[in-house]
Amino acid sequence: MKFEVSATVAYKAMSASTLILNIQPFRSLNQVVIEETFESDPQLKMRELNSISGEKRFKIIEIPGAGEVNISYKAIVENEFRIIPAEQLDDVPISLMTASALTYLNPSRYCQSDRLYRFAYNKFGHIEHAYQKVMAIRDWIYTNVQYGGYTTAQTSAYDTITEQIGVCRDFAHLGVALCRALTIPARYFTGYAYQLNPPDFHACFEAYLGGHWVVIDATKLAPLNGLVKIATGVDAVDTAFASIFGNLQFVSMNVNTVSLNADFESPDFDTSSQGYSYI
Amino acid sequence: MKFEVSATVAYKAMSASTLILNIQPFRSLNQVVIEETFESDPQLKMRELNSISGEKRFKIIEIPGAGEVNISYKAIVENEFRIIPAEQLDDVPISLMTASALTYLNPSRYCQSDRLYRFAYNKFGHIEHAYQKVMAIRDWIYTNVQYGGYTTAQTSAYDTITEQIGVCRDFAHLGVALCRALTIPARYFTGYAYQLNPPDFHACFEAYLGGHWVVIDATKLAPLNGLVKIATGVDAVDTAFASIFGNLQFVSMNVNTVSLNADFESPDFDTSSQGYSYI
Amino acid sequence: MKFEVSATVAYKAMSASTLILNIQPFRSLNQVVIEETFESDPQLKMRELNSISGEKRFKIIEIPGAGEVNISYKAIVENEFRIIPAEQLDDVPISLMTASALTYLNPSRYCQSDRLYRFAYNKFGHIEHAYQKVMAIRDWIYTNVQYGGYTTAQTSAYDTITEQIGVCRDFAHLGVALCRALTIPARYFTGYAYQLNPPDFHACFEAYLGGHWVVIDATKLAPLNGLVKIATGVDAVDTAFASIFGNLQFVSMNVNTVSLNADFESPDFDTSSQGYSYI
Amino acid sequence: MKFEVSATVAYKAMSASTLILNIQPFRSLNQVVIEETFESDPQLKMRELNSISGEKRFKIIEIPGAGEVNISYKAIVENEFRIIPAEQLDDVPISLMTASALTYLNPSRYCQSDRLYRFAYNKFGHIEHAYQKVMAIRDWIYTNVQYGGYTTAQTSAYDTITEQIGVCRDFAHLGVALCRALTIPARYFTGYAYQLNPPDFHACFEAYLGGHWVVIDATKLAPLNGLVKIATGVDAVDTAFASIFGNLQFVSMNVNTVSLNADFESPDFDTSSQGYSYI
Repeated sequence: MKFEVSATVAYKAMSASTLILNIQPFRSLNQVVIEETFESDPQLKMRELNSISGEKRFKIIEIPGAGEVNISYKAIVENEFRIIPAEQLDDVPISLMTASALTYLNPSRYCQSDRLYRFAYNKFGHIEHAYQKVMAIRDWIYTNVQYGGYTTAQTSAYDTITEQIGVCRDFAHLGVALCRALTIPARYFTGYAYQLNPPDFHACFEAYLGGHWVVIDATKLAPLNGLVKIATGVDAVDTAFASIFGNLQFVSMNVNTVSLNADFESPDFDTSSQGYSYI
Repeated sequence: MKFEVSATVAYKAMSASTLILNIQPFRSLNQVVIEETFESDPQLKMRELNSISGEKRFKIIEIPGAGEVNISYKAIVENEFRIIPAEQLDDVPISLMTASALTYLNPSRYCQSDRLYRFAYNKFGHIEHAYQKVMAIRDWIYTNVQYGGYTTAQTSAYDTITEQIGVCRDFAHLGVALCRALTIPARYFTGYAYQLNPPDFHACFEAYLGGHWVVIDATKLAPLNGLVKIATGVDAVDTAFASIFGNLQFVSMNVNTVSLNADFESPDFDTSSQGYSYI
Repeated sequence: MKFEVSATVAYKAMSASTLILNIQPFRSLNQVVIEETFESDPQLKMRELNSISGEKRFKIIEIPGAGEVNISYKAIVENEFRIIPAEQLDDVPISLMTASALTYLNPSRYCQSDRLYRFAYNKFGHIEHAYQKVMAIRDWIYTNVQYGGYTTAQTSAYDTITEQIGVCRDFAHLGVALCRALTIPARYFTGYAYQLNPPDFHACFEAYLGGHWVVIDATKLAPLNGLVKIATGVDAVDTAFASIFGNLQFVSMNVNTVSLNADFESPDFDTSSQGYSYI
Repeated sequence: MKFEVSATVAYKAMSASTLILNIQPFRSLNQVVIEETFESDPQLKMRELNSISGEKRFKIIEIPGAGEVNISYKAIVENEFRIIPAEQLDDVPISLMTASALTYLNPSRYCQSDRLYRFAYNKFGHIEHAYQKVMAIRDWIYTNVQYGGYTTAQTSAYDTITEQIGVCRDFAHLGVALCRALTIPARYFTGYAYQLNPPDFHACFEAYLGGHWVVIDATKLAPLNGLVKIATGVDAVDTAFASIFGNLQFVSMNVNTVSLNADFESPDFDTSSQGYSYI
């Protein structure tokens, strides 16, 4: 699939500050950034970094003093995903997991899986196949958690499981936490999402099944084949679109995702029988 | 029903301390304390107080210095409860509640009902009749929360709803919190419990339905007609068996409840059609 | 002192609802409500209740269906307070406390004193005199907690002690919790406050010292002799100005406090040597 | 320095299980594992992995069924540390940090630095030099937090900052969280510790200052030049000595650290003027 993605973001700096933006699609064998422009007005000193584990890249932007800052990003991206039959998406035994996958079994700031073992086991432990467990987690979240803008930057999966309201970030955190509680590695996924309405950055999650990172969206707000991955990480802490160091006030943001495939079709395929993987 | 209840409790004082014990059955029109003895070895200065709202009485015991303290309590109590048909146990409109009942709608230290609204509504909101809601709450707790000794003095309903393990105190806190979240006044109930095994003090809760305080035990560990009420309150904070001020080490406790009715029969009645009230 | 206090509050009802307002000054021997009017537009069915422990009165207002509701309250109040020398404001031994005072040693929803023992003892335990302890608590809060509108309805003393920002409600909760952690009974106090700027309802707290309930304001935002007590309680749970049952949207509120003493003088007395009591 | 380190650990398996042990010293240019033996009785299938970011290695041990398992590890290790003058241990600007260092600014499961900004700033913000800030953090923890065995696996820095009691793990979590709150990257450090009494694994932390990872021990329980690093990570989640998957009961553990330098001397140097780095 081919997409044009773009984002503009404006801040008002009250003093010299540093801004980290993680809004550029991740580069991989299966996701090629064909062209991109990253501009700031005024022109600012920027540095691009890749995370050590290779699942994101980001810009560190130095803002020398007070004033408005406008960032404008645009890229053309081509990516592919694999469709994998459900029966192949089984549990990976601990003893065969990679060191990287094991990392995603740990609890994290917003995904306290260590406090959800009994809940997860009581609710989903009887389901035998790992992929069906994850589908049941997705459906439980979708059914029980109301989509709404109530949460704060401190809201975690431990809150959402009981308070049962949240935005895509909260849906994703809860999905990650419940998978990890069932010994299924899971990680947070951020990206551009075609046909997300209103247009915005999106968050969902990936579960490690049968050796594949399968993408799951408990909000069901965007077609799974319209995603452009920006980053994956332990949770929102290492995948935030913007991290601010200094005195910067947020002014505005616009995000857009356009399909360059004339014939984009949202799949109405039965996710209970197949999974999507963007790796 | 007639019961002999007794409790012995031993502490080791490291220095002058004050001990508050709330282990004496509450006196009311429907619960008569026929005789009681409350002794300490060594003999200590004690004062008995009643709570201002009249739902408990307790002893304040002054321990003048280091040494062992043995308390021994015994009473004969006769009480009655009412059996009320379920259809009479309906919601009381806010505008008709007493000031006292309204108090038991508030969240408290261990019963954060303000954080459980959406959960309670999603899970039980569709049930029309108030008593059936409360029965569903009891059954949900009984089914989902494992009985076990994992919790600490800081464990609250907000923890138990997710961690799904606890003792009678935790079961009661969660029942109270879920009722309050559905605008049903609820309070914590402590007492002696005949046939509780192993013998111990017991905690359950009361819901305010149709103008009655109906007793509910989500642990299902003791017959509802074998209870001798010690206290009711907002939660464990104002009904603790023992409160310690100073440096007292707990040594041991023994609790016993004997039925003085030769023919005590644990009722196997259908609680879905009738409720018990000890007031 | 003599004050005219008034409050108007507007809601938009989306459906039949019940509103509880606790905005009328408390009546006591030392605080006389000389005259008051409580009106609603449209005219609504109201019931006035007193809390069982006598420290507040409130109106239960039935809103029969959708529409705007405007409440308008005005009163003339005369009250007196006592000034008590600091040296009389000492600890009351547990064994001499009233049942009512003992209640205010318990932790509550927003004042988790059970989690603050070590902090309170480390910070204030070395201060010998109870009133000086309470003054040190007030000053620690005033110095370390920033006054600002960041907190939510779920913010508690356990949050404020670390997050160090809050409004009068949060300052009061932290004061209450720290006193209780030091075995000093403390309760939440709401009222009208002359010269509070901008005008609003105010919250502070009372500590039980030498048998008196001494009023303390860690915000230092209003003169202590300009208060008109509305309610005291365990914390914001039982003293909220408004409690909503149903679908009511808040529209606006106005609060005003006028001194009817031509010569009102904000005292600049040394609170380290004397305390104020409104009981 | 040269050390012999050893650990034996025994479990009782109730069924087939997987055990991950992270007890082997990390291998680096400055820490050479001269020889080591890792044995199990009965003999079990094991796999050794390195974390992707290279800061730990660990064994995955498959336990095929019920029975006792005894693990015995012994190694001879030679390591070096650098002593760096305090004035070189300054803040690294965000814009010059490595991607790896930036990771250690994020909050984590047990180090909720996002909730400690105001506390950290109020308490330590006035100190100008980064290393002196970190020394002040260490001293504040040492002075205010009591060393004691009260905490559970869920205790986090947000608890310890108020509850003010904990073990080495809690001291380290709080140090990490406070550094991150001040925009100083910090990570959790586990290791063998010579002269730690009683002998056990130890936890402390590293702060990123002047481009160096400087080791800090807020417990002050072991000499800084007697450490053998096992792992560094975000907090206890990715550096746990043992992680259990299945039904394994802990039986016993023994840890020992012996100096092979005849003339080991605990340094009594002024840590306010110099820092230690094990990288």
